[in-house]
Amino acid sequence: MINAGIVGVSGYGGGELARLLSIHPNVKLTYVASGTYKGQKLAAALPGFPQKNPLICEEYDEETVISRCDVVFLAQETGFAAKHAASLADRGKKVIDLSADLRIKDQAVYTQWYKAEASSRDLLKRAVYGLPELHREEIREAQIIANPGCYPTSAILALAPVIASKSVELDRIVISSMSGVSGAGRSKHTLQYHFPELNESATVYGVAGQHRHTPEIEQALSILAGEQVIISFTPHLIPVSRGILTTVVVDLARDMTTRELVGAIAEFYEKEPFVNVLPEGSFPATKHTLGSNFVHIGAAVDPRTGRATIVSAEDNLIKGAAGQAIQNMNLMYGHAEETGLTMAGMFP
Amino acid sequence: MINAGIVGVSGYGGGELARLLSIHPNVKLTYVASGTYKGQKLAAALPGFPQKNPLICEEYDEETVISRCDVVFLAQETGFAAKHAASLADRGKKVIDLSADLRIKDQAVYTQWYKAEASSRDLLKRAVYGLPELHREEIREAQIIANPGCYPTSAILALAPVIASKSVELDRIVISSMSGVSGAGRSKHTLQYHFPELNESATVYGVAGQHRHTPEIEQALSILAGEQVIISFTPHLIPVSRGILTTVVVDLARDMTTRELVGAIAEFYEKEPFVNVLPEGSFPATKHTLGSNFVHIGAAVDPRTGRATIVSAEDNLIKGAAGQAIQNMNLMYGHAEETGLTMAGMFP
Amino acid sequence: MINAGIVGVSGYGGGELARLLSIHPNVKLTYVASGTYKGQKLAAALPGFPQKNPLICEEYDEETVISRCDVVFLAQETGFAAKHAASLADRGKKVIDLSADLRIKDQAVYTQWYKAEASSRDLLKRAVYGLPELHREEIREAQIIANPGCYPTSAILALAPVIASKSVELDRIVISSMSGVSGAGRSKHTLQYHFPELNESATVYGVAGQHRHTPEIEQALSILAGEQVIISFTPHLIPVSRGILTTVVVDLARDMTTRELVGAIAEFYEKEPFVNVLPEGSFPATKHTLGSNFVHIGAAVDPRTGRATIVSAEDNLIKGAAGQAIQNMNLMYGHAEETGLTMAGMFP
Amino acid sequence: MINAGIVGVSGYGGGELARLLSIHPNVKLTYVASGTYKGQKLAAALPGFPQKNPLICEEYDEETVISRCDVVFLAQETGFAAKHAASLADRGKKVIDLSADLRIKDQAVYTQWYKAEASSRDLLKRAVYGLPELHREEIREAQIIANPGCYPTSAILALAPVIASKSVELDRIVISSMSGVSGAGRSKHTLQYHFPELNESATVYGVAGQHRHTPEIEQALSILAGEQVIISFTPHLIPVSRGILTTVVVDLARDMTTRELVGAIAEFYEKEPFVNVLPEGSFPATKHTLGSNFVHIGAAVDPRTGRATIVSAEDNLIKGAAGQAIQNMNLMYGHAEETGLTMAGMFP
Repeated sequence: MINAGIVGVSGYGGGELARLLSIHPNVKLTYVASGTYKGQKLAAALPGFPQKNPLICEEYDEETVISRCDVVFLAQETGFAAKHAASLADRGKKVIDLSADLRIKDQAVYTQWYKAEASSRDLLKRAVYGLPELHREEIREAQIIANPGCYPTSAILALAPVIASKSVELDRIVISSMSGVSGAGRSKHTLQYHFPELNESATVYGVAGQHRHTPEIEQALSILAGEQVIISFTPHLIPVSRGILTTVVVDLARDMTTRELVGAIAEFYEKEPFVNVLPEGSFPATKHTLGSNFVHIGAAVDPRTGRATIVSAEDNLIKGAAGQAIQNMNLMYGHAEETGLTMAGMFP
Repeated sequence: MINAGIVGVSGYGGGELARLLSIHPNVKLTYVASGTYKGQKLAAALPGFPQKNPLICEEYDEETVISRCDVVFLAQETGFAAKHAASLADRGKKVIDLSADLRIKDQAVYTQWYKAEASSRDLLKRAVYGLPELHREEIREAQIIANPGCYPTSAILALAPVIASKSVELDRIVISSMSGVSGAGRSKHTLQYHFPELNESATVYGVAGQHRHTPEIEQALSILAGEQVIISFTPHLIPVSRGILTTVVVDLARDMTTRELVGAIAEFYEKEPFVNVLPEGSFPATKHTLGSNFVHIGAAVDPRTGRATIVSAEDNLIKGAAGQAIQNMNLMYGHAEETGLTMAGMFP
Repeated sequence: MINAGIVGVSGYGGGELARLLSIHPNVKLTYVASGTYKGQKLAAALPGFPQKNPLICEEYDEETVISRCDVVFLAQETGFAAKHAASLADRGKKVIDLSADLRIKDQAVYTQWYKAEASSRDLLKRAVYGLPELHREEIREAQIIANPGCYPTSAILALAPVIASKSVELDRIVISSMSGVSGAGRSKHTLQYHFPELNESATVYGVAGQHRHTPEIEQALSILAGEQVIISFTPHLIPVSRGILTTVVVDLARDMTTRELVGAIAEFYEKEPFVNVLPEGSFPATKHTLGSNFVHIGAAVDPRTGRATIVSAEDNLIKGAAGQAIQNMNLMYGHAEETGLTMAGMFP
Repeated sequence: MINAGIVGVSGYGGGELARLLSIHPNVKLTYVASGTYKGQKLAAALPGFPQKNPLICEEYDEETVISRCDVVFLAQETGFAAKHAASLADRGKKVIDLSADLRIKDQAVYTQWYKAEASSRDLLKRAVYGLPELHREEIREAQIIANPGCYPTSAILALAPVIASKSVELDRIVISSMSGVSGAGRSKHTLQYHFPELNESATVYGVAGQHRHTPEIEQALSILAGEQVIISFTPHLIPVSRGILTTVVVDLARDMTTRELVGAIAEFYEKEPFVNVLPEGSFPATKHTLGSNFVHIGAAVDPRTGRATIVSAEDNLIKGAAGQAIQNMNLMYGHAEETGLTMAGMFP
């Protein structure tokens, strides 16, 4: 049994970790920390848990983590992992961080986009980017995981097959994503996320390359391509709680039919337990992924323009956060990668 | 391992059964039937399942059920169980029916409300009403289960403690419920359920005692009360996919504080694994139950009027249908009642 | 031309006043006040207005109101009208207050429910309760209007015909309402109204006679009945921006068919421009009222229980607030009551 | 007074025409046709209208149109205008068609995309493309209007300033749109638009250049550019009733700051009554346009990529259909263009 702790359990990512870990056959949840709900029942922080659940939210305390946990999930604001991850790892714990702190390997790039000091070079080096479809072997050996962002997971998985096969023009990648509002986090209940302001509305933000997930996507694609990739990324906000749909438009580097494109993507992900490549003519809907760790991918070629459109959908809190973190944990412990994560999407 | 089959897998209730049974540790899903999707992959009928899932939808065939299943869940239109349940049971199968066919024990009452012929007296006698909180022991011995309706589950569980303790006037029970649209079923995609007609709207139906779940609620309450109970029940439709919130207003038969009322309800359900009684001052929200088999209950007394208000919330497709059916199956097989059903509500 | 001002223009009620008054053929909007947006364009506060709109939000200043307005709408928090309405009226202005300050005529009742000092006896006396269907003649002569609350408008209009005709038991009135989230106001963007917490959820509040609109409903019904009426009122919150659906269950004092009941309601409202009584068998949906000043009413009798169910729907920000305020203004100025308010509901 | 008729009044476009024309100061609605609701009250077809509205839905009959109407709006399926518009115009009526029949001027292109016979060359020649911002003078003189599609209106207005000024690469235009479900029409209540299937979901359709609005956008942009423009257009479906958000990513042909770009767009639309250009740093939300005839536009430059992102929002049933049709009617009759259309967006 793995003793697991969650720091930041009352946020949406932390809460989803608690929900999923609670039914994981190899995990015992031994520690949940929340500054906001300290001293209160888990059910006070997470109303989907019953009153009878015995867990109590505690304030973060490193000694408690050390004494009670084998692995700790950090679901905190930016800056927390930069400060605490190294020490936890040095003391023998496995650390899976869901923030952006450890994702960007170039400190200058991090500082430019996040307007804050980057994590130490040493810490960044120890932290493996936890996208199993691309870094499975390193994850198995890792002690610290930088769990990918929600948008990057959807965009990188949509693009990886065509980038790896050099099928597209690297300077012509246009990405448009729509996200549910849980992506904004739970503590950020400002006017713009007030129900009546957002309901029945679609809007855009981070326009013209302002969103911080841009360099994370570029870093992953550049590694795959073997050269610098610069993308255009536009995130949108839509009135749903969960889900990300990402539509990528790329210029094909060579002629290709839709059948060939879909076939190549399906082949690339043939052995992947959580990438669901849809048949030709089918495209994803976020609803089909909600509650599951699957990412769904569909694609088509437009012969008029010589472009391809690749669309991916995921549950931003599962494959885009907590589910992927558990997938990483499974790999780190040598368990079957799917353990505790096989549930199909909740429909409708 | 229990070999289980689902007839009507492409409906919302059937689909939820497939999702939940797929992660049940003691169940192997060996048969899925759907007239609409026969010959197609399960993923074609239920897009939350991955393309790789090997199950194929088949047309209903009793011989196949007999050869492949130990237990069969019937998630079909009214009339199917009346016709097929007895034969399946006679041939040694356990049958759990999610339709209304076997719920109403008085044939005349059934015919009056459903405008159709009732099931045979013998079949009705064999079928146990599968509300574990009230009929656990009979369920353990049953071979045929009449799985309760979604509204009745929420209303009966809200009222059972105060009816059983004779704390309320039996002729003064006013029930108001709100349901998500999945309650209307998947095949019924008429204009009234067309997205733009219903979105951003609240409406009412079955007004003034027209809804067919009325006699089911009355039957259960009458058994508890030991005398005939007649209720007023008004169902509403709200623009959510899942969830039922039921608000009951009752006239108290004797003085009682909110603390006493909540305490009595909590005591009544003390050992129940799936009834989550909220502390004084807290009330349910359907969102907190989605994806879980829990029903949440909150209550308060209004000393001005001498009335109490009891509010329950549930996921209509889980505690109100598929989850309760699996809870019944667990009891029938002597497994721990919670097996495969412990997941907390998906939040947000 | 009537020169009109709005105090509190950036709230949902104030914003709706601005929208509706901007197309009123007899009104010129000369003053808009908002503490939050003072010095900014109206479009900054109300993004549905174009950038070119010349109005600038100002801080509230009585002298400015006096110099620029004939009528002023107060769409402020509780307490503002208590302080400012008398002085504005004394200086010759017509005042229409959308808060609760002037609605409850009994100071002790106000203080009990609002936990605050009531308005002065003199001010309460001058303020006419602005429900035109019941108080049209007094409104015509009024200088100060207490504009009714959103829930009370829907509940009183549903009940008035059967109370006035003494067709129901006065001590057996059970009211259940569902409201869109705009009813909570714009400034109250706390966690409970954060989009992901509320979306796909139904919940209840003010349970067991805690909601402040209760005494307002009782006051109006008591006047109609000629004796004290005590009600049970349960408000619910549903995931829509606008709209209130109110379901009233009453015990009939004498036998009546649905046809007779619907006929009596239709007759009661025969000359009313904004009460839309639906034919037998039809029931309201909030969506059908959105964007309009209409209230829709449907009703049916349940002969099994001897009860009737009456259901009303309205746009809480129009007939439940800003539209009704303008209807009152039209009456005060001797204009046709429908002026500027005839638009049908926006559908879908 | 203009006597106006609507053919197809029970559809979403036709219904919105009825709603808007009913409050137009210069219009009398004299004829409403609906095959589905023939012989029934307008309120039966359009529940936002009160029962007292005297209009009765009739079956389409040319002689009735001739005798009762000056102008007729055709809100029918593809094929109706091709068959009926010429005759109505020949007999002296003004005709405004909301279908695609008369929009595409090249018959071969029409047939390729719509898989149907195109309208006659003569009819296509007589029909003016009714986008007032680009074709105001021709519209004033027109007798037949091809009212633009919803997506094209949003995309063309977003792109017109930068195309007209030759600021962007014409072969690098990538358009991504999200639409509310009313865009699918009212009669099309298939499973995919069943509330539970679509709610809480985002999906994509017409992927890789399959949507029929593509050639309409290209035709308009090509005229503006003076050369053939080929675009990539991806429409998405999101769970709202109304509203289109269109995000355009373009490669800038020359260096430009965000200030210059926004300034150029604002200047281009300086005198336009219904184009609301947002200040630098502000971007549209569909909610801010609902219920209004405004299109909102915001833009920014990404210096990293040399690209610009331009975002527009509109109410698909108003500026994208019925409102624009009335704007065209106003121009055709020499009325002020804004007449009956000045209402601000309904918020929230």
